Amino acid sequence: MGKHLTTRAEDYSKWYNELVVKADLAETSAVRGCMVIKPYGYAIWERMQAILDKKFKETGHSNAYFPLFVPKSLFEAEEQNAEGFAKECAVVTHYRLENDPDRAGKLRVDPKAKLEEELIVRPTSEAIIWNTYKNWIQSYRDLPILINQWANVVRWEMRTRLFLRTAEFLWQEGHTAHATEAEAVAEAQQMNQVYADFLEQYMAIPVIQGVKSAAERFAGAVDTYCIEALMQDGKALQAGTSHFLGQNFAKAFDVKFATKEGGLEHVWASSWGVSTRLMGALIMTHSDDNGLVLPPELAPHQVVIVPIYRSDEEHQAVEAAVAPIVEALRNADIRVHFDNRDTHKPGFKFNEYELKGVPLRIGIGPRDVANGTVELARRDTLTKQSVAQTDLVKEVTETLEEIQKQLFLRAEKFRAEHTTDVDSFDAFKAVLESKGGFVAAHWDGTEATELAIKEQTKATIRCIPLEGKPEKGSCVYSGKPSAQRVLFAKAY
Amino acid sequence: MGKHLTTRAEDYSKWYNELVVKADLAETSAVRGCMVIKPYGYAIWERMQAILDKKFKETGHSNAYFPLFVPKSLFEAEEQNAEGFAKECAVVTHYRLENDPDRAGKLRVDPKAKLEEELIVRPTSEAIIWNTYKNWIQSYRDLPILINQWANVVRWEMRTRLFLRTAEFLWQEGHTAHATEAEAVAEAQQMNQVYADFLEQYMAIPVIQGVKSAAERFAGAVDTYCIEALMQDGKALQAGTSHFLGQNFAKAFDVKFATKEGGLEHVWASSWGVSTRLMGALIMTHSDDNGLVLPPELAPHQVVIVPIYRSDEEHQAVEAAVAPIVEALRNADIRVHFDNRDTHKPGFKFNEYELKGVPLRIGIGPRDVANGTVELARRDTLTKQSVAQTDLVKEVTETLEEIQKQLFLRAEKFRAEHTTDVDSFDAFKAVLESKGGFVAAHWDGTEATELAIKEQTKATIRCIPLEGKPEKGSCVYSGKPSAQRVLFAKAY
Repeated sequence: MGKHLTTRAEDYSKWYNELVVKADLAETSAVRGCMVIKPYGYAIWERMQAILDKKFKETGHSNAYFPLFVPKSLFEAEEQNAEGFAKECAVVTHYRLENDPDRAGKLRVDPKAKLEEELIVRPTSEAIIWNTYKNWIQSYRDLPILINQWANVVRWEMRTRLFLRTAEFLWQEGHTAHATEAEAVAEAQQMNQVYADFLEQYMAIPVIQGVKSAAERFAGAVDTYCIEALMQDGKALQAGTSHFLGQNFAKAFDVKFATKEGGLEHVWASSWGVSTRLMGALIMTHSDDNGLVLPPELAPHQVVIVPIYRSDEEHQAVEAAVAPIVEALRNADIRVHFDNRDTHKPGFKFNEYELKGVPLRIGIGPRDVANGTVELARRDTLTKQSVAQTDLVKEVTETLEEIQKQLFLRAEKFRAEHTTDVDSFDAFKAVLESKGGFVAAHWDGTEATELAIKEQTKATIRCIPLEGKPEKGSCVYSGKPSAQRVLFAKAY
Repeated sequence: MGKHLTTRAEDYSKWYNELVVKADLAETSAVRGCMVIKPYGYAIWERMQAILDKKFKETGHSNAYFPLFVPKSLFEAEEQNAEGFAKECAVVTHYRLENDPDRAGKLRVDPKAKLEEELIVRPTSEAIIWNTYKNWIQSYRDLPILINQWANVVRWEMRTRLFLRTAEFLWQEGHTAHATEAEAVAEAQQMNQVYADFLEQYMAIPVIQGVKSAAERFAGAVDTYCIEALMQDGKALQAGTSHFLGQNFAKAFDVKFATKEGGLEHVWASSWGVSTRLMGALIMTHSDDNGLVLPPELAPHQVVIVPIYRSDEEHQAVEAAVAPIVEALRNADIRVHFDNRDTHKPGFKFNEYELKGVPLRIGIGPRDVANGTVELARRDTLTKQSVAQTDLVKEVTETLEEIQKQLFLRAEKFRAEHTTDVDSFDAFKAVLESKGGFVAAHWDGTEATELAIKEQTKATIRCIPLEGKPEKGSCVYSGKPSAQRVLFAKAY
């Protein structure tokens, strides 16, 4: 088991790719750009799902399921949205295979089984869902509709990376319908806030909430709210988006409702989503050259116990001491794993759990049994201490809380150190080249300037921060007036 | 809201289709054969998922996720499996759309974006998974692999029905790898037992466990274990299957492992799955002419409270009385919904919850408030009683248990009345035509006889029961010797 990782300083991108595979999170598959999410990686995703799903339900949403396929005629109905995704669509054209007459035992596509209308594998579900909502909405009494879907989607990306950009990925997509513009905007903002809270409280990732510029907006949206996080290499990562869709889809699919006052109006919409990309954000915020570092809230195992022994007798004595420890930790709702495999040595296990980012490791050997202690090792700081078994539940509980808090603070400190106000384009370029991170600069609000900056620096506007304070200034590129700094960065 | 259903006696099939739509479970979509699972239907599926997922984890399985697509060359590797699914495969042939030069604002498939190798949308995942396991398995130390996946699959069925047979459906598929034949067989049997327990204990559906005949076996399996349930119209429904795959996939994908003894052997496999088809089984086991009847274990709302009032004053008094009732029921872990909408009358709500199968309905009006009572109505028996508010939690808890039990017993009684031993082909046909159900008959074990019986009666062998007692006899069709009765039925 080649555990040794390329260091982050050597090659950040290589470090990431190796870590994802070696920590058993995911791997590439036989299908170009599609990944296999391995059990350990999937267990982290399941934790994320469970927490988010609860938050969605607490805010009044229900889950439902809509078809994987979108007939081409529906897909193209909302033209902006269709154009935005057309270049990366997997298309189903046939519905049957037949025996290949030229290759015994092999199959070929049956040319007689061509679909009359091609089906697009959903890259996002606005089209199929709004075509459905059309039949659900007649009156204001049918509104709001607050629905979420957990699903797979496909975007035929040419350059893919595990979790960050894959042809197929898993996500949730909320799709809501409202009687008023204000309600739809409030919904989009609320869900962006739900995402922000989730990242900060559970993933220990500080985020900036903002609005996208027109060039970075979701195809078909009026406004795209987003949460942006900063990775260790100084690049930004868009971790979630929440769109106010105006009446664009209602108009494309002719969805009107009878108002309380007897009128007939188009419905207002929002949609919002986060995906398995969050796994990439998690890895690139906290992990180190030894492997993954998981915040306790998301760790499938918060504590692993590794027994240390030389003889069967010692093994039995250690096992006897471990049993009540496991029970006590489980009773305190701590997710504990006792790795009692006799096929691997303690050193191997230590390395494995370090690589896999388990927040706390308990080592216990014959001397600990005699002394009534254990060795408690923290993954985030790589520090160890001896703890009395009688204090263990309290110590573990407090240390897990402490790790959760410290991971957030460390990431927040890093972000603060890598967020720079600049007032000239030279400074802009110099900061990007030296330390990267977020560059807060004045911008004249035009797409032309945004594009010129992107071409010259590869940095894009990550967002116009919601909490940015009004501050008059001049655009770093054009010198034209600007009312607020916006955040630029190179991004994943 | 047209609530009136066709009765089961009038037209069972029409009753089913209407019920699924009117109870807000699912509906057809714009994509041929694909369904939309509506929030109420999905909430029931989520209950099923949660319970099954827990059982899978308790039996040592982890979840993971494998690609939606299967390259054709992998798909055809296990020939029996490929042949079994080839005629119903959705095939992705292109990865891009482009503007249609002949239709402004519309799109067409970009002929330049043709895939070198076609991708099959998974109808089942043995191929893609075993191609992955190949890289995970070197030694006996890597075994067993016990993985489950929750996913969507596509089988291009020509005649579809909501939940029972749809082009896309949701399911879970377990895929396990073992060092020995005995272990793989034990796994397949264990999971069939898990399914049987789930159906009987949670869905209140009695099932017969058995083995499929060769003609009904999963394509690529050595043995298919199954659970068979009987619907109200006398037709059987295969509710779940668990396959012992032998070394078929290991051989097709060249998956070998180093044994403890230093040899090199092909791995043994199982796979097992249940799907949204279970929703169809649930509906057709318990529901009646008034709508859905849900077993309390699966009901999203076990209890609904409907307030009855004429004036605002009465409304306030009722609301005040309901608040502590809701709290007390919630504290007892009962899923209760207080329907306090003022846009609908109590009669409308009563009909709605009857149609949606909520196990218990509590009505409470001013007189109840004065008397300290409520009206408690059972969905399964359509009976009502007055209950003192002080006894309510106990009464509700006990009644929910009673409903769960009675639904099972009623279904079991129905099945017993519709399971008939026959000893001649005339009797066989007469039973099928008169009352349907399971026909227990001797069979000579040949596919020819099975096929002849199917052609003449439309009945197939549902299973060779695991608990069938050996009993010598003569095949009802050929007169040849037989060692055990098998179960025939017309089936969904």
